[in-house]
Amino acid sequence: MTPQRVTLITLGVDDIARSKSFYAELGWSPAEEQEGVVFYQLNGLVLGLFGRNALAKDQGRPDAPLGTGATTLAQNFPTDAEVDTAFAAALQAGATALKKPEKVFWGGYSGYYADPDGHVWEVAMNPFWPLADDGSLTLPPAQ
Amino acid sequence: MTPQRVTLITLGVDDIARSKSFYAELGWSPAEEQEGVVFYQLNGLVLGLFGRNALAKDQGRPDAPLGTGATTLAQNFPTDAEVDTAFAAALQAGATALKKPEKVFWGGYSGYYADPDGHVWEVAMNPFWPLADDGSLTLPPAQ
Repeated sequence: MTPQRVTLITLGVDDIARSKSFYAELGWSPAEEQEGVVFYQLNGLVLGLFGRNALAKDQGRPDAPLGTGATTLAQNFPTDAEVDTAFAAALQAGATALKKPEKVFWGGYSGYYADPDGHVWEVAMNPFWPLADDGSLTLPPAQ
Repeated sequence: MTPQRVTLITLGVDDIARSKSFYAELGWSPAEEQEGVVFYQLNGLVLGLFGRNALAKDQGRPDAPLGTGATTLAQNFPTDAEVDTAFAAALQAGATALKKPEKVFWGGYSGYYADPDGHVWEVAMNPFWPLADDGSLTLPPAQ
């Protein structure tokens, strides 16, 4: 059984600087920034900004038109095995595989699938983002 | 300053029964169901399923094509005044107004805006969904 959980929402954006400026105007401060990606700590989950094309490519749908899927809903898990289990459960439930879970460049393990309407879910293990016992995600202090 | 918070994610779907079946296959149980809308309790926030066209109409963009905006990111607030403040802050930050906050049929108060990329945010006061002190949202027991 896949836990009822969303730990990371990623918005695909055209211009990260423009988006950062928008959220800064709202009074939001990034908790973490890296080349091409920005993360905000929310209430037990995280919001990420990422290039729209980079996100589509990362999701395994590089030729995706603008559209549903420009947002990612993510579930983080403590282990690779739990990622595989969740991915398999989604396909069993009728999801479309976009990217089979694999070791990824940022040091974790990640796969993507689309629900029946094309909403994109990521299942991931991120060794740098430990989950609380209740499955919530609080970003660690910046390095 | 608008709190860094997402309390409700709504996915616009073509067939709610099909979507419910998909999430049921994952082992997810709705916390609340009404005509045309289903809510799942997540980790301190809530996931909703709502008809795609109904969602687009509710967002103030009835003629929206399939696309960005088929997902709503929502922030709930304790009072109408805080909804107005958050809506005004978003416009000030450069958001596009979609629907000015207003009393809505389900008994709350709600408005919508789009961020620079068209991602749709809702700001709302729902008297039936009290927020915890930390701004997180846990659905009340079903009636």
